[in-house]
Amino acid sequence: MVKKNFDGILLTQFNNIKYISNYYPTSSAICLFKENPVIYTTAMDKELADETSLIEVKELKSISDLKKVFKEESLKKIAIEGNLPISYYKKLEGSKSKNEKWELAIENFLEKERMIKSPNEIEKIRNATNIAHKSFEELVIREKQEKRFTDWEIAYELGYLMRNNGASEESFETIVATDKNSSLPHAPMGNKKLGNIILMDWGAKYNGYCSDTSRTMIEDNDKKQKEIFDIVFEAYKKSIKGTKSGVKTCEIDNIARSVISGYGYKDKFIHSTGHSLGLNIHETPSISTQDGTVLEENMVITIEPGIYLEGEFGVRIEDTVIVGKNGVEVIGKLPHEI
Amino acid sequence: MVKKNFDGILLTQFNNIKYISNYYPTSSAICLFKENPVIYTTAMDKELADETSLIEVKELKSISDLKKVFKEESLKKIAIEGNLPISYYKKLEGSKSKNEKWELAIENFLEKERMIKSPNEIEKIRNATNIAHKSFEELVIREKQEKRFTDWEIAYELGYLMRNNGASEESFETIVATDKNSSLPHAPMGNKKLGNIILMDWGAKYNGYCSDTSRTMIEDNDKKQKEIFDIVFEAYKKSIKGTKSGVKTCEIDNIARSVISGYGYKDKFIHSTGHSLGLNIHETPSISTQDGTVLEENMVITIEPGIYLEGEFGVRIEDTVIVGKNGVEVIGKLPHEI
Repeated sequence: MVKKNFDGILLTQFNNIKYISNYYPTSSAICLFKENPVIYTTAMDKELADETSLIEVKELKSISDLKKVFKEESLKKIAIEGNLPISYYKKLEGSKSKNEKWELAIENFLEKERMIKSPNEIEKIRNATNIAHKSFEELVIREKQEKRFTDWEIAYELGYLMRNNGASEESFETIVATDKNSSLPHAPMGNKKLGNIILMDWGAKYNGYCSDTSRTMIEDNDKKQKEIFDIVFEAYKKSIKGTKSGVKTCEIDNIARSVISGYGYKDKFIHSTGHSLGLNIHETPSISTQDGTVLEENMVITIEPGIYLEGEFGVRIEDTVIVGKNGVEVIGKLPHEI
Repeated sequence: MVKKNFDGILLTQFNNIKYISNYYPTSSAICLFKENPVIYTTAMDKELADETSLIEVKELKSISDLKKVFKEESLKKIAIEGNLPISYYKKLEGSKSKNEKWELAIENFLEKERMIKSPNEIEKIRNATNIAHKSFEELVIREKQEKRFTDWEIAYELGYLMRNNGASEESFETIVATDKNSSLPHAPMGNKKLGNIILMDWGAKYNGYCSDTSRTMIEDNDKKQKEIFDIVFEAYKKSIKGTKSGVKTCEIDNIARSVISGYGYKDKFIHSTGHSLGLNIHETPSISTQDGTVLEENMVITIEPGIYLEGEFGVRIEDTVIVGKNGVEVIGKLPHEI
């Protein structure tokens, strides 16, 4: 902060406010991060903030009132987060009078801080993953497939099991994609009975931290499904093997992409190889072609190559890993062939 | 659009994209709304967009590529939505070269369009509300209270019932606030056994449209709870009675606030009296002190006064109503005293 010559930083991402204060807003809130950071929140959220925040909480009626705060605190150069909606930014800038001296600059301050996880954060991600895996095993998906349960019934039961095992909620909306729906990486839930291939992508949230896992259950005797599964699994294993501190994220993406391209499915791998996660399910960096971040120890990322054959089916295999000096630790021991 | 002298509008809110095209994005997408509107989406979402969109779909690799689109389409003055993150805006503006002539202006174009609901939209909100109410009745909350179920078990069972009755999902995270947790308007879920007062706020989503209802179940012989319940119910009934086309939203808010203030609880009504809803659970206008919107026929809004006694308990009563010429139609017939 001193180096950048900012007097204060306005945090607007709810997970950054949680990271700083332990309070997670339910309506709107801002954290002014300076020597003594302060939360500004609505009257409606004040009691919850008072109960959960580790730092001082004040009430703010309107975003324009921030100007008074800038004056009271003698703030001249203030960093704001890039997620601030343009309309808020313009409202604040537009209300500035000639004799006011403050200026706003975009700075994604905590994004970098949050890339490296503390032992405490890693423990929470580990717990979230264990809950997610245990719940998946309790679901006994193959049995549900025989009984022709529907996609949303599966997602719903898995959600119940995860909560029952200690999760506060899902870390994102569970994907249960069956038959040709599995060729959509983010298949929306329908009311489809489970068919002969099932792609699932799910996660638990534990003390605010996310887990993220995908498995694809293919049919026993389907050669095409087996071929695609094996290619994705090879891409998965080679990317895992190539991941360690000092390596660039785009290099890992390239490992997965090369395997899949080598088999002629280059155009069918239609997303990046992975992403960092923590309080958010998607954090910086992404493990993608255009990202040049050098991995460091205690980053926590997903590895999730996939192949999607439009109108036919799709396969994705995903685990969450902790980056180490000489390799990674894959969190959990959930089998890949189910 | 012609009046405002825009060549095109960039829609970035997912629900506006759904409103125009029927496609709901799962990653990132933009709709360029001009004579022939076009969706630009990611490779990952392309198949889903092709399947569900009623308008043309193209792929866009990066937000900077929009510049090429502006050139191809000879767009000079482009409206953008206020929800666009400031970082995206700056990226696009920053990539502009000297000989490029386009400029961006903030305009919340569809917000006004979406305020008045079509008969088809009203039918969907009605269906969503019926599903939510039927499911609540099937839940038999008083029985669950006796059996000391926990808050999340109730929320979860209600979610199951709503899906079973035809909802695609909840329209927002269900609130089940018991005992002193009910004094938090947006109480986060704990793992608390149901006590002697329960405040619930829930909604179903049906074909993209939301419902929104709150009920508070007080204890039979608690005088204080009964006193507060009666005040909130009076505020609810008087606001409902005062709502019709031609009335300003702040006037309705004032009706509810005056009743509550009259009994000395002015500072305990810590949110606005209601909000419009539709594809979003919160739409423009809000029924609040500072909003001057004049109600029109076929707006659909909530009326939801509440009193929150910190550390004790809270009461909120909420229904969704359709604004008419001479009054409102309250959607559903769910009793208020349960």
